[in-house]
Amino acid sequence: MTTMNKDIKRERDGATFDPERLAEFLYGGKEKLRRRRYLQNLVLHDKYLQSLPKTWNWGREMAYDIGVKKSIYLHRWLNELGILNEAERNTVRSAAAPMEANSLGLHESMFVPTIMKQGTKEQIQKYAEPGKRYEIIGTYAQTELGHGTFIRGLETTATYDPATEEFVIHSPTVSSMKYWPGGMAKTCNYVILVAKLYSRGECHGIHPFVVQLRSLEDHTPMPGVQVGDIGNKMGFDGMDNGYVMFDNYRVPRDAMLMRYARLDKDGTFVPAKNPKVTYGSMVFIRAAIVGMAARCLAEVCTIATRYSAVRRQTEIRPGGPEPQILDYQTQQEKLFPLLAASYALIFAGNVMFKTYERVAGNIDKGQLGEMQMLHALASGMKALSSYTASDGTDALRKACGGHGYSHASGIPRIFANITPACTYEGENTVLYIQCGRYLVKCFAQSQTGQSLPSFMSYLSQPPKASSSITKECSLPHLIEAFDHATARVIEVAAVKINALVRGGQPLEVARNNAGVHLVKAAMLHSKSYVVKVFAETVARSDLHPDVARVLDTLCHLYAVTGILDHMGDFMQDGFVSGEQAVMVTDRMLSLLEEVRPDAVALVDAFDYPDHMLQSCLGRYDGQVYEALYRYAQDSPLNKQEVDDSYYTTLRPMMKGELNPDGPASRL
Amino acid sequence: MTTMNKDIKRERDGATFDPERLAEFLYGGKEKLRRRRYLQNLVLHDKYLQSLPKTWNWGREMAYDIGVKKSIYLHRWLNELGILNEAERNTVRSAAAPMEANSLGLHESMFVPTIMKQGTKEQIQKYAEPGKRYEIIGTYAQTELGHGTFIRGLETTATYDPATEEFVIHSPTVSSMKYWPGGMAKTCNYVILVAKLYSRGECHGIHPFVVQLRSLEDHTPMPGVQVGDIGNKMGFDGMDNGYVMFDNYRVPRDAMLMRYARLDKDGTFVPAKNPKVTYGSMVFIRAAIVGMAARCLAEVCTIATRYSAVRRQTEIRPGGPEPQILDYQTQQEKLFPLLAASYALIFAGNVMFKTYERVAGNIDKGQLGEMQMLHALASGMKALSSYTASDGTDALRKACGGHGYSHASGIPRIFANITPACTYEGENTVLYIQCGRYLVKCFAQSQTGQSLPSFMSYLSQPPKASSSITKECSLPHLIEAFDHATARVIEVAAVKINALVRGGQPLEVARNNAGVHLVKAAMLHSKSYVVKVFAETVARSDLHPDVARVLDTLCHLYAVTGILDHMGDFMQDGFVSGEQAVMVTDRMLSLLEEVRPDAVALVDAFDYPDHMLQSCLGRYDGQVYEALYRYAQDSPLNKQEVDDSYYTTLRPMMKGELNPDGPASRL
Repeated sequence: MTTMNKDIKRERDGATFDPERLAEFLYGGKEKLRRRRYLQNLVLHDKYLQSLPKTWNWGREMAYDIGVKKSIYLHRWLNELGILNEAERNTVRSAAAPMEANSLGLHESMFVPTIMKQGTKEQIQKYAEPGKRYEIIGTYAQTELGHGTFIRGLETTATYDPATEEFVIHSPTVSSMKYWPGGMAKTCNYVILVAKLYSRGECHGIHPFVVQLRSLEDHTPMPGVQVGDIGNKMGFDGMDNGYVMFDNYRVPRDAMLMRYARLDKDGTFVPAKNPKVTYGSMVFIRAAIVGMAARCLAEVCTIATRYSAVRRQTEIRPGGPEPQILDYQTQQEKLFPLLAASYALIFAGNVMFKTYERVAGNIDKGQLGEMQMLHALASGMKALSSYTASDGTDALRKACGGHGYSHASGIPRIFANITPACTYEGENTVLYIQCGRYLVKCFAQSQTGQSLPSFMSYLSQPPKASSSITKECSLPHLIEAFDHATARVIEVAAVKINALVRGGQPLEVARNNAGVHLVKAAMLHSKSYVVKVFAETVARSDLHPDVARVLDTLCHLYAVTGILDHMGDFMQDGFVSGEQAVMVTDRMLSLLEEVRPDAVALVDAFDYPDHMLQSCLGRYDGQVYEALYRYAQDSPLNKQEVDDSYYTTLRPMMKGELNPDGPASRL
Repeated sequence: MTTMNKDIKRERDGATFDPERLAEFLYGGKEKLRRRRYLQNLVLHDKYLQSLPKTWNWGREMAYDIGVKKSIYLHRWLNELGILNEAERNTVRSAAAPMEANSLGLHESMFVPTIMKQGTKEQIQKYAEPGKRYEIIGTYAQTELGHGTFIRGLETTATYDPATEEFVIHSPTVSSMKYWPGGMAKTCNYVILVAKLYSRGECHGIHPFVVQLRSLEDHTPMPGVQVGDIGNKMGFDGMDNGYVMFDNYRVPRDAMLMRYARLDKDGTFVPAKNPKVTYGSMVFIRAAIVGMAARCLAEVCTIATRYSAVRRQTEIRPGGPEPQILDYQTQQEKLFPLLAASYALIFAGNVMFKTYERVAGNIDKGQLGEMQMLHALASGMKALSSYTASDGTDALRKACGGHGYSHASGIPRIFANITPACTYEGENTVLYIQCGRYLVKCFAQSQTGQSLPSFMSYLSQPPKASSSITKECSLPHLIEAFDHATARVIEVAAVKINALVRGGQPLEVARNNAGVHLVKAAMLHSKSYVVKVFAETVARSDLHPDVARVLDTLCHLYAVTGILDHMGDFMQDGFVSGEQAVMVTDRMLSLLEEVRPDAVALVDAFDYPDHMLQSCLGRYDGQVYEALYRYAQDSPLNKQEVDDSYYTTLRPMMKGELNPDGPASRL
C-alpha cells in the first residue's frame, strides 16, 4: 500500500464529476470497462510477463529478443485463455507490451489478412492457413529504399517465365531494394512482396506476390535472397525492420495473389474487374491510426497532468509556498488544449470507424460512390491526428521540465513510437494534398450546383460576410467560423489553380504551385470535422449531465484553440473581426480556468493503469520523487560503484601516471 | 574517390553565388575558415579517433566509456599540439565528438571557472589549480530532484559548526537530492554544490561550496555521500548525469567559495557587496545556447536539403519523371524558413556575444545599468533559439520521410542533443515570462516618458494606425509591423495586469493571469530582435554583393514567415489588413522560389564535413542509397545470419514442437 500524494488526492476530491462515468462512456459501457480492467489485470498478475526486464534498460538486441518472446507467448496465452475477440486481444497486447514494437505484428495484421482477401481458395489453403497456425511467418514488403508513398514508382520486378511457370523476382538497382518492412530482417520466412509484373515483355503494373525468404528447415536465407536488418532507429528497437534484395529469384506462378487480377499459365494477363477493390485496407489502417494517435496522446496527457498536479515550482507570491505548476496559466495552456485534443480525436476515430464500416459494406455491394469521400477523410484525419499526437507528445514532454527528458517519464518512448505515424502509411503532407485535391474537386462541383456528400455541404451554403461569434463563443458560431474559413481557403486554392492553368501551366504543375494552400485547406477541413464530431458527441442523450458538461468545456476549448492557431485565416476576409479575436482569446483563457478543477479527473477517466504508463511522473499515487529515485538505482551505470573507465582512463590522468603509450595519452 | 550524384552536382553548378564567400563571412574570414578546416582535418586523420565505433550502435555503457576516453584523449592531444585558444579547442572537440555529451565538459566549463571567479586566492590554489591539471575532476550541482529553475527553492543545507570549523552538508528530504548534474555519477570526485547556508541558526541564502564526493585514492564515494547515475534518458548517453544525497557530511570551512560573501570562523556571515556579481555566467551560458542551437539547426538543414535534392518522389505529371522533392512547394515551405532561421540565429548569437562582452565589461567597472536589459534579452533569445532548433529539427526529420527516423539520417541524435536546451539553464516558458515582465516594465517607463535602452525604443514611438506593407514586403515595413504588433501585445499584457491589480489581485497573481500574454510578448520581441540583427547584417558593407543578395532573400523569408506564424496578432487591431495578409503570403511563396536555386549552396556554406554530420542522407556527394545500404550492414542484428530467437522461440512455434514447459509455450 502506497500513500497517496496529498496534492493529487485533493485534486480528485475536488473534481466536479465522477471520472468513472466518463471512463464507462469512453470504453463502451460499464460491462466493457469491467472486462477491459479484468484483461489488464490478467497481464499484471502473469508471472512470466512481469518477470521481463523493464523497457528503459533494453539495448537493441534485448529489445528484439524480448519482443519475439512476448509476441509468441501472448499468441499462445490468448489462445489458451480462449480470448478470440480481436479488440480484446489488442487490449491484452497493449497492456502486456505498451508502446512496444512487435516484430510479429504485421504477420497478423497484414500477411494473413492480405492473403485471405486477395488470394484464391487454393492460395488461402497453401499460405494463409499455415500462417494462422504460425507454421510460416510473413510480413508485407512494399516500401523500397528509393520509393515510399508513391507506389507506382516501385522498381522491384516479377517477370513471368512461361517455360517453367515461374516468376523471376529481381531487384534491378540499389534503390529498388525493399527497405523498412517490419519483421522482415530476422523474424519472417515469408513476405507479401509488392512488385511490378512483367509478362510477354509487357508491364502490367503493381501486384502482390507471396515470396519465401528463408528456409523452412534452418531459417537461412534462400539462395538469391539477401536479407538483413536496416540498423538502429530512433525507436522501434524491438522491430527488425528489414531490407531484402533479389537476384533473379524464382517463385512458382501461384505466388501471385490472383483473386482479382490473374496471370494465366501461358502468360496472359487478366486484369481485375474493378482495380480499386484493394483500396479498403489502406483506408482501414489510416482510420486505425487516428484512434492509436489519440490514445498515445491521452497517455502522455495523463503523465503530464498528474505530474503538474504534484510538482511545485517557483513561488507566485514572494515568501509564499511554491504552487502546483498546474496553477500556472502558461502550463494550463500547454496541457489542456492537448487534453481536449485527446478526447476530440478519440471520438473522431470512433466515428471514422463506423463510417469506414458503412462505406466498406457498400463497396462490397458494388456501391463505390462514397469511396473518394472516405479516402479523403481518412487521409486528412491520419495526417491531422498523427501530427497532433507527435507534436503534442513532444510539447508535453517539455512541459514536464527536465524530468520529461529522462526515460523515467515514459514520454520519450511514447514519442519514438508515435512519431513515425507521420511518415508511414502515407507521408502526411502527401495525404493532406490528396485530401485538398478532393476538396477543390468538391468546390468545383458546388459551383456547378452538383450535390455534395453531407460532410462537404458547407461548400454549398450561401456565403456570409461576418462571424456571429460573441463572447460566449457558442459551438454553432465556432463551427460556422470553421466552415467559412475552410471554404474560403479551398476557394483560394481552386482559384489559384484555375488561374495558373489559364496562364498556361499544366494542371499538375499548377496544383504543385498551390500545394501550401491545399495543405492548409485539408488541415482546416480535418480540424473542422473533428469539432463537428465532438459537438455531436457532447449532444448525445446517453451522457450523464456532469460528463456532458465537462466534455462540452473540452469541445469548446478544442474549437477555440483551433481558431487561435490559425487566426489570420479566420480574419483575412474580415469574417472574424479584431474584437471577436479578442473574445476568442479571452474565452480560451476562461476555458482553461473551467478545466482546471477537473484536469486530474479528466485524465483518470482515460483509465490507464500504472503498469501501462511505465512512467515515474504519471503514477496514479503521485509519489514521483520516490519513483525517480528508484528509477536511478536501476541505471546500468550503477552496476559498479567505481566504473571501469576510472581504472583505464581517469586514474592514470589524475595520478599523472602518464605512460606515453598508455591509455591516458594515446589510449 | 566517390562520384557525385548528378542532381546535387547540377544544384551546385546552378547556384547564383559562391558558397565559399559566404562560408568565409560566417567563420570570420578566409584565414579563420582555412584554420577551421585544418583543425577538422586533424581529427579526420587521427587514427585513434577514427578507430572508435560509430555512435549509432553504442549502448549506454559504451557511450559513457568512449565519452570519457575521447575527453581525456582530446584534452592531452590539444595540449600536446599547443592548441590553447578556447574557440579552436571547441572546433576540434565538435569535430571529434559532434553532438556527443561530454562527461568532463562541466569540469572545464563550470567547475574550474566558478572557482576562478568566486574563489579566494587560497581556494584557487587549493581547488582550481589541481583541477586545471586534472588531478581532481569536478562538476556543478544545483538542480535537485524537486527543484529546477527556481533556485531559492533548493533544500540542500550547509550548516556551519564553529566548534570544528566545518560545514555539515545534508539532504533533508528525497526531493532535496541533487539530480541531473552532468558527470557527477561516475566521473567526478569533486562538485560545486549549491546549498542553503545556515549559521548561528539563521539562513543566509544560497551559496556555492566545493565538496569532495569520491576518494582520491580509489574513487569510492566518501562516507556520508550516496552518489550514482540517474538512469537512461532520451539521449546524452555518454553523460553520467548523477544524483547525490548527503547524510550530515562534513567539509572544511574553506569549502564555501568566499571571494564575495564569506563566513568567518566564528560563524559571522558577511554578505557580498553586490549580490548580483555572479549573474554574468548565467547570461553567458544562455547567450552561448543561442549559437549552439543555431548551429544544430544548420546541420539538420544541411542534411534535409541535400537529401531533398537527390530524393525523387511521385510524378508531378502523369508518366513524367519523379521530381526532386526539393521542387515541391510544400517541401520548400518546410525547409527554407528553417534555413533562414539558421542564418538568422547564427547572426543573432554573434551579436549577443558582443553585447554580452560589452555589458560584462561595464559590470566589471561597476556599471550595472544594462544588466537587466541583457538578462531579458538573453532569456528571450535562449527560449526562442532552443524552441526553434528543437521543433525545427523534428520538423526537418519528418521532412526526410521514413528515412529521417533511422539513426542513419543522423537527425534523431541531433534532436536528442538539442531538445534538452528547452528545459536546462532555465525552462523556456519561465524565461519568456521573465523577459515579458521586463518588457511590461519598459512599457510603464515609456508611459511616464523615461528613456529606454535602444533596442526597446519601439515602445516610445508614436503609434500608427496601419501598416505600410506593400507586395514587395520591404524589410523596413516588415520590421515596423513587428514593432507595432510586439508593442501592442506588451500593452495588452500591461493593461491586463493593471486592471487585475486594480480589481484586487496581488501583483504576482495578476502577472500569472497574464502569463500567456507575457509569453507572447517576449516571443514576438525576440523574433523582432532577430529580424533587426539579420537586416543589419545584410546591410554590412563588407559583404560580397552576391552573398548580400542571397542573405537578403533569407532575411525577408525569416521576417515574412515570422509574421505569417502569428498573423492574427498582426491583424487584431487592423494594423495589417486582409489585403496585406495576402501580400505577405504571396511574398512568402515567391521567396521560396527565389531560394530554390541556391538551397544546396546555402547549406554547403555552413561547411560541415561529412564526418561531423554522420548522416547517410546529408552526404556531400549525395550518394544516399549506397550509404543507407552500408549502414544497414552495420546493424547489431546482422552479426548473426539466423538470430538466436529463432532457436529459442520461433522454431519451436513453427515446428509445433510444443513442450508445455518449453520456450514457446511458457518460455
